[in-house]
Amino acid sequence: MTLYIDLATLISSRIEQGLYRPGDRLPSVRALSIEHGVSLSTVQQAYRHLEDQGMATPKPKSGYFVSPQRKVPALPQVGRPALRPVEVSQWDQVLDQISHSPEHSGLLQLGRGRPDITAPTLKPLLRSLSRLSRRQDASVLTYGCIRGEQSLRQQISRLMIDSGCQIPFEEIVVTTGCHEALSAAIRAICQPGDIVAVDSPSFHGVMQALKGFGMKALELPTDPITGINLDALKMALEQWPIKAIQLTPNCNNPLGYIMPDANKRALLDLAQRYDVAIIEDDVYGELAFSYPRPRTIKSYDRDGRVLLCSSFSKTLAPGLRVGWIAPGRYQEQVLHMKYMGTGSTAQLPQLALAEFLAAGHYEPHLRRMRSQYAQSRDQMIDWVSRYFPSETRVSRPLGSFMLWVELPTGFDSVYLNQALLEHKIQIAPGSIFSAAGKYRNCLRINYASKATDEIENAVRIVGETVARLLNETG
Amino acid sequence: MTLYIDLATLISSRIEQGLYRPGDRLPSVRALSIEHGVSLSTVQQAYRHLEDQGMATPKPKSGYFVSPQRKVPALPQVGRPALRPVEVSQWDQVLDQISHSPEHSGLLQLGRGRPDITAPTLKPLLRSLSRLSRRQDASVLTYGCIRGEQSLRQQISRLMIDSGCQIPFEEIVVTTGCHEALSAAIRAICQPGDIVAVDSPSFHGVMQALKGFGMKALELPTDPITGINLDALKMALEQWPIKAIQLTPNCNNPLGYIMPDANKRALLDLAQRYDVAIIEDDVYGELAFSYPRPRTIKSYDRDGRVLLCSSFSKTLAPGLRVGWIAPGRYQEQVLHMKYMGTGSTAQLPQLALAEFLAAGHYEPHLRRMRSQYAQSRDQMIDWVSRYFPSETRVSRPLGSFMLWVELPTGFDSVYLNQALLEHKIQIAPGSIFSAAGKYRNCLRINYASKATDEIENAVRIVGETVARLLNETG
Ligand SMILES: Cc1ncc(COP(=O)(O)O)c(C=O)c1O
Ligand SMILES: Cc1ncc(COP(=O)(O)O)c(C=O)c1O
Repeated sequence: MTLYIDLATLISSRIEQGLYRPGDRLPSVRALSIEHGVSLSTVQQAYRHLEDQGMATPKPKSGYFVSPQRKVPALPQVGRPALRPVEVSQWDQVLDQISHSPEHSGLLQLGRGRPDITAPTLKPLLRSLSRLSRRQDASVLTYGCIRGEQSLRQQISRLMIDSGCQIPFEEIVVTTGCHEALSAAIRAICQPGDIVAVDSPSFHGVMQALKGFGMKALELPTDPITGINLDALKMALEQWPIKAIQLTPNCNNPLGYIMPDANKRALLDLAQRYDVAIIEDDVYGELAFSYPRPRTIKSYDRDGRVLLCSSFSKTLAPGLRVGWIAPGRYQEQVLHMKYMGTGSTAQLPQLALAEFLAAGHYEPHLRRMRSQYAQSRDQMIDWVSRYFPSETRVSRPLGSFMLWVELPTGFDSVYLNQALLEHKIQIAPGSIFSAAGKYRNCLRINYASKATDEIENAVRIVGETVARLLNETG
Repeated sequence: MTLYIDLATLISSRIEQGLYRPGDRLPSVRALSIEHGVSLSTVQQAYRHLEDQGMATPKPKSGYFVSPQRKVPALPQVGRPALRPVEVSQWDQVLDQISHSPEHSGLLQLGRGRPDITAPTLKPLLRSLSRLSRRQDASVLTYGCIRGEQSLRQQISRLMIDSGCQIPFEEIVVTTGCHEALSAAIRAICQPGDIVAVDSPSFHGVMQALKGFGMKALELPTDPITGINLDALKMALEQWPIKAIQLTPNCNNPLGYIMPDANKRALLDLAQRYDVAIIEDDVYGELAFSYPRPRTIKSYDRDGRVLLCSSFSKTLAPGLRVGWIAPGRYQEQVLHMKYMGTGSTAQLPQLALAEFLAAGHYEPHLRRMRSQYAQSRDQMIDWVSRYFPSETRVSRPLGSFMLWVELPTGFDSVYLNQALLEHKIQIAPGSIFSAAGKYRNCLRINYASKATDEIENAVRIVGETVARLLNETG
């Protein structure tokens, strides 16, 4: 049903990445139909969709061309973190983000990593939950196997084939969200005092886990299009006794890039050469706007050094608290960490998810969310370019639902957040994405919800507040 | 409805503790009616119940007397662990216990810590779960506040009054089971290498957490009636830099004792004197057979050094994975540990529990389970004394649903478990309850389920196998 949207998204991401430039002729309808194995009319629909979006222009008798460039804000700059291991800070700011629950505070939380949970394609999952809830038996109400429910692990094993992984269900361990997967992975490999290399900016959950376990983070310069800088990584591996590399290569949080496959492979080579583990977070991988979904680093792994962590929090609903880990050669240590952390994961959501996946409800839901998020990304970039000062730089997310916004050096997004409180709006200050509190001139905005006047208005207020603060300090 | 059962249980536990001895005259109906504020007919019902159980004998015109002693196996001996900090072992044996899920393996798991989840008094909870599952909104499907759902925390605060605690809901943090509460508590207080004093035998979840965090356990001699030996504790505090004392004073797992209030207070005094924290596990406290429920050490705490950990896993259903912690002065550290461990706890079970508690469904359920467990304890002790060799010693649980069985030194319950596999029966070998693998001559048996022929038969097989193994080795 939304096959054409997938194709349109693929073409538009190629345009955005510069493969086709403004004025270039786009591939013929026939060529695309053969390349992607879809009908001619699907390709035509995709092109009409790109036309509607102002990305492609038809020329009679000669096909489609890339439209003249729209004015899009410049890209964020590459992070330049200090290349040495640091102790993680920023807990206060993180706590501030996660302390409010939306119902009680009435805050519009533009900063949090929440997906849209209103789609009708979620209904079958709710029905399963509701039906299974009434089952008063051990399968629902008591401790399950520490590895997780077999029927769910089988479905996860199937899903992972799309990312290039052949992992038997026996090697998968269900966790309480991706949080537990990451935390167990880190603790399975590292001891207190050890150094973990991370992309930068990076997910605060991991960095706070490093803090909690007394480990150090080495933040690597990260390109907003290609991800972690491999030369810098190599230098760091030469210089420091790094135990693990932790990164989110697909639809990165917060930058939105997808690491090119060649880089993924090169990264794995480096990890092999220096014998370090890779903790790969793929929690957004299935929300890539292009189809088929990007590969994981794990898919190239031959000696079990990659611990692949994920969950259904971003694709379905975070409230389920169901994630998983494919821990490679670290299975035994990960099981131990899981046991001491939570014992086992709740059965009910596992059983409901297994039903939902087995019945084929997941893929239509993903297609729907991908196209919604792709549209609202464009909308959010438009709003930011309209309402924010002209110096603003923004990311070009290739998946998921988060935009990274960079303001001139010296701007203070923690202060911005305080100023926004009176408007009951909250953004995520960039500094929580750095172990050392860098990126204070940046912020992350969530665009998961469908565009509404309320959100547009909030973005306008944020933009105006940014402008006011810039004027005051400049 | 079961008020008389509560009273009967109280009297019978006084008999068991030796307050009234065989042949003693029991208090008059009138005296008990005044003491407990219940009607005369309730006391009469209680006495008739004790009569049915063979504990009390009426003598015309002179009231009730304690029946001549039934033949009950001797008590287990006091543990004599090596009084020095050790690294925790036994993970293999623990993993063996928790790897099987009952549905797939067809094992009769007499070793696990599972409550009976078949009572009709659980129904309202299932109905709430089922109804709330259909609510497609943020309150159910997305991340809640890291501290947990306010309505649930308010109910927990109310429940804790019964254990003598006045703790405002703001100080309570919801966790993913008691496992997460304990693990967060340990990590909030201790660093790798630190020493934690524990009761012995003790819950393996805590000891495996110590192992996972690289801490050492100092196992304290523990009396099967009064709990941790305070003199030994004092000596240990003098000798070692102990950071925390972790124990389960109420309806201890695995021994079943309730620490006398005076000992609880003395323990707190020691903790204050030597400035160590107390991690108190109260997961079975509401399942004490006597009424009112026993106090927590936390209820005496004045300077926030007690971290009280609990959950609804034993009183309602472990599959919910909802627990809590009242971390006293360690709130901030515990929140950090919770964030890195699981992010937040699932919303759905929290909301359903809050409804269940607010509607007053919890207390009738507890009354029912307490009286069921008290009865099946008696049944299990009967079976063990009937089917096990005469040298067998057993505990006298004052609550909860686990019996500790001690066999002559040299007996090997790990080997017993292997021998039982062909009968598809599993017990918990005593060694998993010791950091150093002591108590291999002991085992723990679950008596949560109502007595059935299947269970009686299983106990008979275990007893016969024990006898055979004893003969072979002896
Ligand atoms: C990169 C990344 N990994 C993991 C998580 C946490 O996932 P979960 O909610 O499944 O614990 C998040 C959520 O913010 C995230 O952005
Ligand atoms: C003493 C004790 N504490 C905690 C737990 C674990 O509780 P939960 O299932 O809530 O994590 C158990 C369960 O075996 C236990 O016996």
